[in-house]
This record gives sequence, C-alpha cells and structure tokens, in this order.
Amino acid sequence: MEAAEYMKKALALAKIALGYTSPNPVVGCVIVKDGEIVGTGYHHQAGAPHAEVLALQEAGDRATGATVYVTLEPCAHYGRTPPCARTLVQHKIKKVVIAMLDPNPLVAGKGAAILRQAGIVVEVGLLSAEAVKLNEVFIKNMLSNIPFIAIKLAQSLDGCIATRTGHSQWITNAWSRQYGQYLRSIYDGILVGINTILEDNPLLTCRVRREGQVVPHQPIRIVLDTYGRTPLSSQVVNDKTARTIIMTTAQCPQEKKEALLAAGVTVLTAPTANTGCVDLHAALQLLRQEGIGSILVEGGSTIHGSFFDAKLVDKIYAFLGNSIIGGTCALCSVAGEGVDGLEECVPLHYDSIEIHDDNILIQAYNVAREGAYVHWNH
Amino acid sequence: MEAAEYMKKALALAKIALGYTSPNPVVGCVIVKDGEIVGTGYHHQAGAPHAEVLALQEAGDRATGATVYVTLEPCAHYGRTPPCARTLVQHKIKKVVIAMLDPNPLVAGKGAAILRQAGIVVEVGLLSAEAVKLNEVFIKNMLSNIPFIAIKLAQSLDGCIATRTGHSQWITNAWSRQYGQYLRSIYDGILVGINTILEDNPLLTCRVRREGQVVPHQPIRIVLDTYGRTPLSSQVVNDKTARTIIMTTAQCPQEKKEALLAAGVTVLTAPTANTGCVDLHAALQLLRQEGIGSILVEGGSTIHGSFFDAKLVDKIYAFLGNSIIGGTCALCSVAGEGVDGLEECVPLHYDSIEIHDDNILIQAYNVAREGAYVHWNH
Repeated sequence: MEAAEYMKKALALAKIALGYTSPNPVVGCVIVKDGEIVGTGYHHQAGAPHAEVLALQEAGDRATGATVYVTLEPCAHYGRTPPCARTLVQHKIKKVVIAMLDPNPLVAGKGAAILRQAGIVVEVGLLSAEAVKLNEVFIKNMLSNIPFIAIKLAQSLDGCIATRTGHSQWITNAWSRQYGQYLRSIYDGILVGINTILEDNPLLTCRVRREGQVVPHQPIRIVLDTYGRTPLSSQVVNDKTARTIIMTTAQCPQEKKEALLAAGVTVLTAPTANTGCVDLHAALQLLRQEGIGSILVEGGSTIHGSFFDAKLVDKIYAFLGNSIIGGTCALCSVAGEGVDGLEECVPLHYDSIEIHDDNILIQAYNVAREGAYVHWNH
Repeated sequence: MEAAEYMKKALALAKIALGYTSPNPVVGCVIVKDGEIVGTGYHHQAGAPHAEVLALQEAGDRATGATVYVTLEPCAHYGRTPPCARTLVQHKIKKVVIAMLDPNPLVAGKGAAILRQAGIVVEVGLLSAEAVKLNEVFIKNMLSNIPFIAIKLAQSLDGCIATRTGHSQWITNAWSRQYGQYLRSIYDGILVGINTILEDNPLLTCRVRREGQVVPHQPIRIVLDTYGRTPLSSQVVNDKTARTIIMTTAQCPQEKKEALLAAGVTVLTAPTANTGCVDLHAALQLLRQEGIGSILVEGGSTIHGSFFDAKLVDKIYAFLGNSIIGGTCALCSVAGEGVDGLEECVPLHYDSIEIHDDNILIQAYNVAREGAYVHWNH
C-alpha cells in the first residue's frame, strides 16, 4: 500500500463519526510499521479519546519507529485530553503524515512544530482536499460565528417541489429519501419554517442508525417561527426523541413563549428583520451560541428563498426526481425575493453528480459564501 | 480487436452524419478480413450511397469471405440504390453482424433473410441499445406520423430561465451554448414560440460546421404563431440562411399570410386547439408531412409548458447553469397548465449526466412517450 492508500483509510475511519463529534472535528488515524497496519482509530464523539490515542493503544510497542497517517494536525493544547502531538513524541514515532493543519489560524502548525522539534519527520498536505471537505463544518466553525448551512432541495427536473394543487409526495424516490435520512444524521440541526409545521406536522427525527454507530444521531429540530404559531400539540413539541428550538421574535406573545418552555422546548428570541420575519443572520449567531455547528435546511420554498436571499447557504444537496411537473402555478423550489440581475445570483461550484434509480443527486457549493474557510488552505 | 470494437467504430462512423441524412437513418459499416479492417463507410446524406456500398468499394476484392459490421439491417428494397443485402451477396461476404433490424415492422428481417438465404452467417443485436439510440429519430419516424420532439432547457439549478426582471443572458456557460449549437446541427427543425421572436428577434441558425461536414446543417426554423404576429422585419423572415415555417391558425389574417408568403416564408395553417392556440398534435402532423422528422424545441417557457402539457416530448436536454436564481417572481423553465397530481407528471428516465466547467448536462427521455418505438426491439 502507498501513503495515499493509508491516508484514504484514515479518512474513511474519520467519516464513520461524521455528525457525532460536534463541536470537535472528525479525525482518523492509521499507524504503519514495516508496511503493516499496526493500529487504527477515529474520534468517536466529543469527550472520547482522540484518534491518535486509540491507534497508539492498538499499536502498543509496535508504535516505536512507525509512521502515523492522520487526517488532521495532532492537537498541541491541553483540553479534555493531553496534547496528541506530545503523546506521539512519547511513543517514539518516526514520521507523521498530516492531511491538513488545524483550521484555527491561531493554532495551525503548533502541533506539527512540536513533532518536528522532537526530530519527527512531518509531511503535510496528503489528500488535503478530501480532508478539508470532510471537516468543512469544523473549518467554518473555527473561522465564523454562524453554523455551516446546507440546504436540501428535493425537486423535479424543472425545479418544482409540488404541483399546482400542492401534491408533493413523492417527487423523489426511496434512495433519495434514505439519503435524506443520512444527511439528518450528519448535521447538528435540522431547520424548517413554521409553514412546514402547520401544513405537515412532521416528526423531523432521524430514523437511520449508521454503520458503526450505536444509536441514530438526532439533530436538534429548529423551527423559524416569527409569531410563535407552533401548536403546542405539534409533534416537534411533544416528541422527546430530539431537542426542539423555536426561533421566534418579539412578535411572539410572552404567554406562548412560556407555554412552549413549559412543554420542554427551547425558545430563542431573535431580532426582527426589515422583512418582518426572523433576522436570519442574528438567529444563526444565537444557534451557534447554543453549540450548533451545522444546520440542514429542509424548507419549504419560502425558507429556502430566505436563506439564498441572505446569501447564507454554504452547500446544496439537490435531489432531482424523475419527472417534469410543469405549470405556471406549480410550487418552485426556491421562492423568496430573488434578484434583478444574474450577477447577483448565488454562484455554484458543482462538486459531484450521481444517478440512483433514475434520481439524481447534485452536491454543490456556494462559491461566494462568507468567510475565508472556503479558500482555507493547509 | 473484438466484434464489439468493430461495431463501435461503425457506430462512430454513422454518428458523423447525424442530422444530415433525413429522412434516411444514419448507418455505419466496417468490413474486416483476417483481423484487418479493409473497408469503412457511412451514409453521408439522403441520395448518397449507402454505408455498405462505400465500404465495399474501399474493400474491393478483399470483401470476398470478409465479415461486415453494420449498424442497421441492410436494405432489401429497390430505392434510389439497389438493395444492399443483394450487393453484399454479390460480393461473397461470409458473415454479416447487424446491430439492429430495420425499425419498420413491415420490412424488418427481410434484409437479413436475403443474406441467410444466400448462405451468409447473420448475427443480429450486437450493441443494439447504442444503435437504437443513434437512430431514435428514424425509429420514431417509421412508427409514428409526428416528428421526434426534443426540448432544450437551459436553466439554473432551481429551474429558472430568467430573474424576476427577465435577465437571462447568460445562465449557462460557453460549453453549454456550444453544445446547443451542436444540437441545432442534428435536428431537422428548431421550434420557438412567437414571444421569442417578438422579444429577442433571434436568427436561429446553426453556426457550427461539424467535423467531417462541408457546411453547417441548417435546421428549418419553425415559429408557433397563432395570430400571425411574426413581424415582416424579423430575422427569421429576412435571413435566407435557413428555411422558415410560420405555423399559424385561421386566426391569422389572410393578408398577413400572403405577405409572409411573398417574403419567402412557408405558412402552414393548423387547427386551433381548445386553449385558443395552435393545436400542437395537428401542427406536428403537418410538419412531418413537410418532411421534418425531428424538432428541437428551444422555448420559451410557455412553449415548453405546452409541449409537456400535451405529452409530446420524447427527449430532454437540460443544461444547468452554475447558479441559484430564486425568487417567487423568477421565470420557471416549464410553464403551461401543469398537473394536479404527481401521477400525471411526465415521467423521465435519466440517460446521462455530465459536468463541464461547472455546467451540468442531463439527457433524459420521457418514458411514457407515445408509440411503440420506445420499446422497439430488434
């Protein structure tokens, strides 16, 4: 096996815990001695041992003189665990191959420096593009005070999410809907508008347990609800499988806030924007303060439009069902204000496309998204 | 080389003439003797020699005892040329490998029968799926009395073809627009609605000369114009690079018809549908009678909607530009009446997807399209 193969294995290990490690990054580690893998590990969740520690435990004495492949720079600070860089030095590692440095510019390079000072050979940058993508949420969290925002569109080829009568189940197929469940399992929060609650009364839980995980990861349910119209009888209020946050404004009556609180729901009050609705940017700052590092926006089209109008979207998962719905009165997938000129549009980079059973999944990034993290480079 | 490789070469030869052979099919032929290609040919245009004849000419005496790979069953009838099946017999061919039989059920198998009766080994079906796709227009023309209809959508990821102010140039990139020119070169006709003429006054010509072709193929320009509002000063009337057909109804004043005729334009009068516009199915029958076997519909959104509402679309080329336009008032790519229930939608099969410079091209078929030609099988 070559170095890139070991790093791919480390990346694959890291990916197992995607969604479970917040606020920490996902990290995978592979230790190789004389062409043989002697230890592997990944960071399972916040508070659990780091990937390097688990891999070193497995390797035992064989770690001496070995090469370590790790997807993120070993930490240099004393947190819940001692710094991994020092642990690697103690185990007499010969060489450390790092996919990407710590995205926090204040600490980037410090772990690598500890290793080099101890005479360990350090190489940085192997499969860095893959590593950056895997930790895109963590990178944004290090460089911004709002969560990473992904939007899920589930539409017909012509961009509709319902017919003129509102019929929408199902535009996408079983594969797409199952992938939608996977997405819920890798984001900290899932956000919908009050109309979705009033019209569909959804449960908004994650119903898949991922391979290697003991329980399904349940994203926090977030409802944008300017006037506090979420019914006390709604599923997101009564179901306790996952936490629920009602994001409202001063336009919500105090009694309603208290009733929601009494029902066990978190109520956050954001400023009202010029549009008369929740100020999205301020709301996202509040959610970040609640520890939410990433949010999957699941609509409807008004909410999608608000996020695109505010240029707050980082990533898009567009599922295209195998149909043309058509019709001037069909419901489009992205409503909102829109733009006058094409130069004001949200510009995309198409990252990947795939077909499954006549549904297409397109993954795209907003290339104009806020913050240096887009162009963040090891 | 294996048999499939020879047939692939024959298919590639056939493809060179796509758009130039109407009303004939495209056909490619490769003759192999002792593991060596001794003759190749393709049908260049209607009236020109058939692929087999050109390949036999090149092979000369080496054709004796050779194997012939041909993408379509050799013809059995006396037309502008003698039947190719008999010519192959005369040249003492040993074996003929045919990708697909003649799609006309009345003559399918007759060419193969002539060959077999002469003691030639005949195999049918090698790469038949590719051959059927290459001649999808010809197959529909053999089995239906309306042209093959392809629709070109050029939209943002969210299905918009213009912003709320009508800004639309350019949603797609140079690669997509160049591919759009290629599409014009492979269809007999190109169709737009009167609004496109009034708003954009386009030339609607093909400006690319394809490799292996002497002049650009110019599709016939077709304008759906219920009331005869096409200005005499418009480019499609005055430019003589390509023929123009104005498809109108009895609601067009007789004087306007005569003025258009005097300007050198063909005027066809179709019945008026219940919608008050041109009856699309009847119009397509008239266009087929004019010798038009395939039409590329280039919009705008009202025309797209009409074709989808009438379930007349065979194929879709959807170009996705790299943007989200958004906005409740943006122009959607498929207008028209639409449907109530999802079960009434036009169901698609996604045939291929590709990314070029951050634009996506999706090729899809209407799986419910009319006629047995969809499921036509050798």
